[in-house]
Amino acid sequence: MSFSARLADAVQATATPLCVGIDPYPDRLPHVGGGAPATRAERFGLAVVRAAAGRVPAVKPQFAFFEALGPGGMAALATVCAAAREAGLLVIGDAKRGDIGSTAAAYAAATLGPDAPFPCDALTVNPFLGPESLAPFLEQVDRHGRGLFVLLRTSNPGSHRWQAPVADDLAGWVDAENRTRGDGLGPVGVVVGATLPGAVAHFRAALPHTWLLLPGYGAQGAAAADTRAAFRPDGLGALVVAARAATFPEAPDAAWDHDPTAFVAARIDALAAELRTIVPC
Amino acid sequence: MSFSARLADAVQATATPLCVGIDPYPDRLPHVGGGAPATRAERFGLAVVRAAAGRVPAVKPQFAFFEALGPGGMAALATVCAAAREAGLLVIGDAKRGDIGSTAAAYAAATLGPDAPFPCDALTVNPFLGPESLAPFLEQVDRHGRGLFVLLRTSNPGSHRWQAPVADDLAGWVDAENRTRGDGLGPVGVVVGATLPGAVAHFRAALPHTWLLLPGYGAQGAAAADTRAAFRPDGLGALVVAARAATFPEAPDAAWDHDPTAFVAARIDALAAELRTIVPC
Repeated sequence: MSFSARLADAVQATATPLCVGIDPYPDRLPHVGGGAPATRAERFGLAVVRAAAGRVPAVKPQFAFFEALGPGGMAALATVCAAAREAGLLVIGDAKRGDIGSTAAAYAAATLGPDAPFPCDALTVNPFLGPESLAPFLEQVDRHGRGLFVLLRTSNPGSHRWQAPVADDLAGWVDAENRTRGDGLGPVGVVVGATLPGAVAHFRAALPHTWLLLPGYGAQGAAAADTRAAFRPDGLGALVVAARAATFPEAPDAAWDHDPTAFVAARIDALAAELRTIVPC
Repeated sequence: MSFSARLADAVQATATPLCVGIDPYPDRLPHVGGGAPATRAERFGLAVVRAAAGRVPAVKPQFAFFEALGPGGMAALATVCAAAREAGLLVIGDAKRGDIGSTAAAYAAATLGPDAPFPCDALTVNPFLGPESLAPFLEQVDRHGRGLFVLLRTSNPGSHRWQAPVADDLAGWVDAENRTRGDGLGPVGVVVGATLPGAVAHFRAALPHTWLLLPGYGAQGAAAADTRAAFRPDGLGALVVAARAATFPEAPDAAWDHDPTAFVAARIDALAAELRTIVPC
């Protein structure tokens, strides 16, 4: 079954387009239980997975925070990715990888291959190196029913400078890749910041066969209403990411520190309820 | 001492601009001694380090090949980076990282920070997310005497499509970053493929304060003469990367398999001699 079909099913089964980011900030990890930072990052990630399972279609582990904790952090990432899939969640690896030839193939194998050490259902990729730099990722997509989310217009203020001049051409490339793979939503999604509602509406119209992944909801300042234009009339076609807003308390919280699961579950329910006022999935 | 000054000293001390890539291709690792792929990748990387020490200014470990081997591969990467620095080599981490805000800061800390688990003197970065996405990397550069190599025109055939429309503006940004940091060569280098001699000459002229890192020499098809235009009249300003051409035999080679050090040392000497006919460092 294709990634896109699995994603659509998961959005409908959970009745929300919310995707929960797993961002183990080194200075915000739970303390109860002790251990090295990598151990605490793993405990945090697994707690988010427990909260997310059955509540949302997907989680998005941020590779950078695990990498910053060294090889032990990468072991924690591997454990969290595997646990999320085991729990029935789709895993969108937020790695923003991009390289050429055999190097791109190595990144693709690491995340999307059948024996990937960091098993993901989809991966964020950076297209700057050119169309053929994405071919090794597409090979895993086609062979193993995986997905991609190509950076198109990111949520940061300066994204326009080196993205805007190429965004329409890049979007055209994405559209063509999806159209060659079928009539419905295809496996090659794009990342468009929820902080840029104009870009969201523009690319929703330009890319009828493409999933939009929208970071920026919550902590980065975008409101639920900013995501409205990302959805097709059937309520599909977009995932809205919440990371910090879904997983961290604003102030020290002993219950969260003991086990973030209940806290994150309640936050997810609140964010999903807010999104349900915008789009009925 | 700044990265740029250390690099200039190292180029002059070794009398070559050659940078040796450490690319542990999973299907080309030495077999003698056995062990898991990560163990064999580490043994290969350490052998390249022994061969490179004192012969070249820098090595360039390719993160993707280590990541493809899982957490154990990342432990091998950490070991190889640390051993290279211990041997007096500058380490250019080829990770092509790029992200925003705290996520970019996590990648920068992982590689360029004072306690980086994957310690590098410089890092390749992907600028597609915008100028402010590079700020957390520049913070480590300025605090700890590190360097960057920003992807500008990569060596692959399709690099023109989404790089060419922004390359001159991006080059102007790099130039300004270096000029604000002093009169000589600055810490923000660029990656320009040796396979694109026109681009090499163009950016050498446009960026008098900028190191050029040139992949594509050897296995990717560029000849030594293609790199000539990358150098300033004083013989500085560019590093020429050889990875496969410097480290792997064309056919099975029992001596290489036992310990690649002597083989790699001889290849380095030959490549450096060839480059010396082009540029006297």
